[in-house]
Amino acid sequence: MATVRGFFTPKTATGRSSLIPSPPWHYSGDLLTVEYRTDPAKVAALLPEPLGLAEEDPGAVAVIWADWQSCSESREELLDPVRAQYKECFVVVRCSYDGRTYSRCVYIWVDKDFAVARGIHQGYPKKLGSIHMTRPHPYGLAAPRIDAGGVFGATLAAADRRLAQAVVRLREPSETNGFVNGHPMAHNRWLPSIEPGKGLALDELIVAGAESFEAGQAWAGEAEIELFDAPTEELADLTVEEVIGGYYRQVGVVWNGGTLLETGTSGAL
Amino acid sequence: MATVRGFFTPKTATGRSSLIPSPPWHYSGDLLTVEYRTDPAKVAALLPEPLGLAEEDPGAVAVIWADWQSCSESREELLDPVRAQYKECFVVVRCSYDGRTYSRCVYIWVDKDFAVARGIHQGYPKKLGSIHMTRPHPYGLAAPRIDAGGVFGATLAAADRRLAQAVVRLREPSETNGFVNGHPMAHNRWLPSIEPGKGLALDELIVAGAESFEAGQAWAGEAEIELFDAPTEELADLTVEEVIGGYYRQVGVVWNGGTLLETGTSGAL
Amino acid sequence: MATVRGFFTPKTATGRSSLIPSPPWHYSGDLLTVEYRTDPAKVAALLPEPLGLAEEDPGAVAVIWADWQSCSESREELLDPVRAQYKECFVVVRCSYDGRTYSRCVYIWVDKDFAVARGIHQGYPKKLGSIHMTRPHPYGLAAPRIDAGGVFGATLAAADRRLAQAVVRLREPSETNGFVNGHPMAHNRWLPSIEPGKGLALDELIVAGAESFEAGQAWAGEAEIELFDAPTEELADLTVEEVIGGYYRQVGVVWNGGTLLETGTSGAL
Amino acid sequence: MATVRGFFTPKTATGRSSLIPSPPWHYSGDLLTVEYRTDPAKVAALLPEPLGLAEEDPGAVAVIWADWQSCSESREELLDPVRAQYKECFVVVRCSYDGRTYSRCVYIWVDKDFAVARGIHQGYPKKLGSIHMTRPHPYGLAAPRIDAGGVFGATLAAADRRLAQAVVRLREPSETNGFVNGHPMAHNRWLPSIEPGKGLALDELIVAGAESFEAGQAWAGEAEIELFDAPTEELADLTVEEVIGGYYRQVGVVWNGGTLLETGTSGAL
Repeated sequence: MATVRGFFTPKTATGRSSLIPSPPWHYSGDLLTVEYRTDPAKVAALLPEPLGLAEEDPGAVAVIWADWQSCSESREELLDPVRAQYKECFVVVRCSYDGRTYSRCVYIWVDKDFAVARGIHQGYPKKLGSIHMTRPHPYGLAAPRIDAGGVFGATLAAADRRLAQAVVRLREPSETNGFVNGHPMAHNRWLPSIEPGKGLALDELIVAGAESFEAGQAWAGEAEIELFDAPTEELADLTVEEVIGGYYRQVGVVWNGGTLLETGTSGAL
Repeated sequence: MATVRGFFTPKTATGRSSLIPSPPWHYSGDLLTVEYRTDPAKVAALLPEPLGLAEEDPGAVAVIWADWQSCSESREELLDPVRAQYKECFVVVRCSYDGRTYSRCVYIWVDKDFAVARGIHQGYPKKLGSIHMTRPHPYGLAAPRIDAGGVFGATLAAADRRLAQAVVRLREPSETNGFVNGHPMAHNRWLPSIEPGKGLALDELIVAGAESFEAGQAWAGEAEIELFDAPTEELADLTVEEVIGGYYRQVGVVWNGGTLLETGTSGAL
Repeated sequence: MATVRGFFTPKTATGRSSLIPSPPWHYSGDLLTVEYRTDPAKVAALLPEPLGLAEEDPGAVAVIWADWQSCSESREELLDPVRAQYKECFVVVRCSYDGRTYSRCVYIWVDKDFAVARGIHQGYPKKLGSIHMTRPHPYGLAAPRIDAGGVFGATLAAADRRLAQAVVRLREPSETNGFVNGHPMAHNRWLPSIEPGKGLALDELIVAGAESFEAGQAWAGEAEIELFDAPTEELADLTVEEVIGGYYRQVGVVWNGGTLLETGTSGAL
Repeated sequence: MATVRGFFTPKTATGRSSLIPSPPWHYSGDLLTVEYRTDPAKVAALLPEPLGLAEEDPGAVAVIWADWQSCSESREELLDPVRAQYKECFVVVRCSYDGRTYSRCVYIWVDKDFAVARGIHQGYPKKLGSIHMTRPHPYGLAAPRIDAGGVFGATLAAADRRLAQAVVRLREPSETNGFVNGHPMAHNRWLPSIEPGKGLALDELIVAGAESFEAGQAWAGEAEIELFDAPTEELADLTVEEVIGGYYRQVGVVWNGGTLLETGTSGAL
């Protein structure tokens, strides 16, 4: 009898076909962040048991666009960049669990299948989308610089509808890249039973964060953001009550797994 | 504390954001099938414990292109067809388990995220790809008819590489649409632990098939198929030793869950 | 010195690289049409000299979704269907020229490059878009039949924004597939001079229609249509004042060139 | 009678719908270049009258991948970056005309419609393709730096087939970014007559180059390149006889029209 292997499916005798290789996964990319406040009840409505609202500023939301290049330990994907590049837009809130504050991604869209598969593993609720963000460049008039006065736009669409758009005007260097996405991520990994009516086959609460992180100077500035409704999306229900600010930062990240916190307790249906 | 709901992620208070709705799922579409024989050892290498080779014709492989429209019980997706239409190319072998013969999808590519998510649930090892198949049409010279002499082409690409192409020339009505994909599907649902080195968090062997099925007349004919190598694919290793035949059929299918056979026994790594 | 050849660019010694082959071009496909009335002044604003408004019902507009398979005389594209299939959404008005009534496409979106190139030749003002329309199918619940009660949806997006969506409910067989798109097309072929400020290098008024045409039974029914604004589009300015009706028809068409009417007289800037 | 306006189609009363705005067009982006020698007869076969082979190194070819952000004078596209970003892969040779040496693009693939339309204006023989090139980044392991030892990959696909792939390993700063693409571009603008058998309606030889140009340090290094055959492409016929080298450079460019050299003399069919 064969042993099939591979970090993800499809599993084969060699493991070569796996949609994603084993962690660690390396990321180099740019983050455009807009933070705002919504009604905390709308954040609470997205938190399954036993997660609760964060104590401070519980209605804070970060919408983050990222333009990534990523690879496995072999780095071989970098020379076949269709396998390395992807963009994403994700929406982060904070929550509390066991006396600590965590970040939590409540919505996320990516544009490649390997990024979807990583999300299945990491508990990110990924859909496919079309994501664009202005790219800085040092030459010519067709790009901002990462500097005071630099203006960046970002858009998100899915299923042929625009879901979000933002503009950030850089003003000054910043000590932070925002505060909403700054904690380890408390995520659920859920999969329904194959048998109808039997509930969840997998119901885990896990925590995961970057194994290592390096970054350039963060910049802060003014931000505008618009969210648009769609039949299968609830992003626009996280209404923008007050914009906190916008940020831009170039980062390098290593992700290498997380920790199981508990199982079977989310109460999710 | 909120209760979040939804058949799949993202889960919210309403469940409206779920990437896929609850089954049953309805499908209307066309299937172009090419069956061939490969070395049975290559099939065996893809079967985890406790699955074994089928007793008869164990090296038979079906490569199936499908052009689908699909929807949930509400059928609302049909009026926003970007949410209903997708194409797929999947590779099916047979296996034996507990004295019975099952079909099993070993590779599959689709072109929409909701189809990827269904695959996570159903144990199909889905990747994104670009799938094309000639469409029959009753008028004009730019389409074959589903009739003797009709010629259909089909192609598969992923990561900007062509992986497979086939041509089927219809010859005569057929009692079957091939024999490889005719059994309930024995699939694994696997997810690695979030903690490195801890093995699988989900390791299920499940069986699922159509809840109901209707179809037009199947047609059989001559087939040619070519498989191409790629750095992250092993489809071409299922070498074409002998083409069995080609088939075309229009079908309507309902899928509504399956049955868990066993857990924790696949030996997959 | 070489002679380069090819109906379109790139031209080479063989002509094999040409983005499009020589006409005749064959089309097999389905048309979903919504006709409505807008303010005739809005139609007039899109007609260059010497075109004028049609005498009867001058504010009539047809928005037509088409799901095509197309090929050249060799039909070789049909076996590599990525080169044969495309979808389009186009907006047609009528105009008068020299005492006759013509149809005229004022906006059009397609999803393949060969379709864009044909449009450059034929005077269709093509952009790329994402086009979807419900596909009829004889089996299963995931598709309407082309019959009374069949409901079809259609959508158009470009640059990650939805621009139009429509629903048509078939009621009864119809003698026509609408009246707006029923005349030969009076189109302009324009190209600016390579030298700034020198006006147009090509300024032709041409007429072209189908060389031959066959079709199934047309169906008529109720229609709804919504148009959405976008920064680089003016489709929504053709406001829907009164819906005339919706139509569905399967057709086969041959296109084989047209006739030059006049040059240098459009007054276009 | 209305006057319709717009640099390109669709033309309207406002000009707002035009697929491309008037030049000048601004570009900020990165260029990955591989230069090699092929049989000069293969270059000659792509040059229409009255162009001839360049005197020095007439078989030199440059394959250039570019990752662009571009905009019009208003720069408004930069805040809706789906309208500003595109990638391209283009193949340049040199030719002589009237005693001077010109560069000439013989094949080119882009991934946006506005880039196709610019090509129609500029005489670039554009098709749509899927283009990827490794992006440099200052942080993390998932990107090279633009520095000695930086390794960049690049790929091109069209119609679901890979057409080219290259790897460039940076070795040292370079005075040039190669020599093949360093001259003004001698291009043809061709459009067939709408009337079959009537030849060309537009047959221009034009020259155009950058109005202004700024750039960072060019880097040179070792290069590998592979070209793959496809039924509708002849790129692979420009066989790689000897690799000259690879280059990487970040540039800012302004394009603002060109000059008509002659008309009706290409002899193209």
